Amino acid sequence: MDLTPRIETTLELAIRTAATAECPPRLADALHYAVFPGGARIRPRLALAVALACGDDDPVGADAAAAAIELLHCASLVHDDLPCFDDADARRGKPSLHRAFGEPLAVLAGDALIVLAFETLAAARVRRPSRLAPLVGIVGRAVGAQGGITAGQAWESEEAVDLAAYHLAKTGSLFAAATVAGACAAGAPHEPWRALGETIGEAFQVADDISDHVGEAAALGKPTGRDKALSRPSAVLELGLEAAVARLKALVSRAAAQVPHCPGEAQFKALILSETQQFMPAGLKARAA
Amino acid sequence: MDLTPRIETTLELAIRTAATAECPPRLADALHYAVFPGGARIRPRLALAVALACGDDDPVGADAAAAAIELLHCASLVHDDLPCFDDADARRGKPSLHRAFGEPLAVLAGDALIVLAFETLAAARVRRPSRLAPLVGIVGRAVGAQGGITAGQAWESEEAVDLAAYHLAKTGSLFAAATVAGACAAGAPHEPWRALGETIGEAFQVADDISDHVGEAAALGKPTGRDKALSRPSAVLELGLEAAVARLKALVSRAAAQVPHCPGEAQFKALILSETQQFMPAGLKARAA
Repeated sequence: MDLTPRIETTLELAIRTAATAECPPRLADALHYAVFPGGARIRPRLALAVALACGDDDPVGADAAAAAIELLHCASLVHDDLPCFDDADARRGKPSLHRAFGEPLAVLAGDALIVLAFETLAAARVRRPSRLAPLVGIVGRAVGAQGGITAGQAWESEEAVDLAAYHLAKTGSLFAAATVAGACAAGAPHEPWRALGETIGEAFQVADDISDHVGEAAALGKPTGRDKALSRPSAVLELGLEAAVARLKALVSRAAAQVPHCPGEAQFKALILSETQQFMPAGLKARAA
Repeated sequence: MDLTPRIETTLELAIRTAATAECPPRLADALHYAVFPGGARIRPRLALAVALACGDDDPVGADAAAAAIELLHCASLVHDDLPCFDDADARRGKPSLHRAFGEPLAVLAGDALIVLAFETLAAARVRRPSRLAPLVGIVGRAVGAQGGITAGQAWESEEAVDLAAYHLAKTGSLFAAATVAGACAAGAPHEPWRALGETIGEAFQVADDISDHVGEAAALGKPTGRDKALSRPSAVLELGLEAAVARLKALVSRAAAQVPHCPGEAQFKALILSETQQFMPAGLKARAA
């Protein structure tokens, strides 16, 4: 099933809700620029796939959860690209937001997207109000100071870094939120979905490290070789390319084994295997197969 | 009634919730630094005073709403002080957060405080879950792109600025959230409280413009004369000092008249008059009396 229309429609609606006459026009443009055109939308597709595997009894709530997670991902990209962090010129094949709109609007657009994520969750409360509090908790944990994305980014400001904690916070946390929130939005027991999300996040991070190393800048829409240039932790720099590719393959297998029992289990497992295959840089797919 | 212990305890608990072992130590320190010691805590005191005037039937929820509003206020101060905005050296009588911890941690601490505000609301859902969605909506509107704080700050990036919209978004919105969320947390009809919050916010802004102009830097804990230096809109620069003082006095009277009917109406009106008197810079109190 193509989940793209559900995701893009919900994101469009969220941005339109924020970008009213009360929103300064350049900020409205910046919000749209940060979210469209999107990347692979991996996290919201994962969230919706889990919701569907769990029965998807509240599609409005599931759409909102998926959109909230993508909005938070976009916010983190905008802030991570700022001069005080990665100082990135390009993102998703176009100038980074602060290059296009200036640094003040980049800070503000990131802030506004974080707020919009929580508003999007709350606005979809109509049918299942009791699911809102756990969803806010799940999403908040994924991006907050306690092991969320901001924690992940903040580890780069520490002298001593626990590499596993760093990757789990910076990447794994939002993938875990995608699986856990997807299940929660569909009324399923949701914590059993956390390990799967963390594994997919780790696989994605290793694949990203490989891409950064082998340098398919055009395919990525962002500069490569940044991990080495910025002395950032990287599975390739740590393990070597061959071992990193083997690690990615092992993580994909582990993910398939971690899918909790659910009504749509078989179909979901097949999806996971096909989606995670997409993580692999094109030039290395044969090596990992 | 001294509301300080309720506010400080809830804020301490919120920061402690975030600053666990999974939070990088310097980020944890930065979060604490951003919130303690506080300023006058005007917004959370206002929120709690409204909740009490409305019967305060869920103190845990009211405390969470008050704390969420103060966390969002602190987040906005941290981001507003950044080099790309006000480039402020000092705040609340000590170095601004980015001067003390560096720019990366200032961006991240602001982000994390925004997230923590929504997590704090959700964590207090225990007794009255149906109030969470409206509270998230109220608080989100106050800080988001649609007329909230980020919109207010973003008006500074526009060529043409509607001064009333600018002030309402940058200052009035969070005061309005304080009154509206205070009523909502206590289960009262909450929208009737918006006009009062906006008026108090406008009074506070005019008082702040006056303070910036007359220059009591030591009392404010931040530099003065910034409005003129940064070409920011200011009631004093627009109207002159005398007329600005008269405007402040008129706003205080209007606020008292805008208090909706509620169980604790008389006591609340007295509180509003005494609190708004505190807005006035010490040297000008006689003139405004």
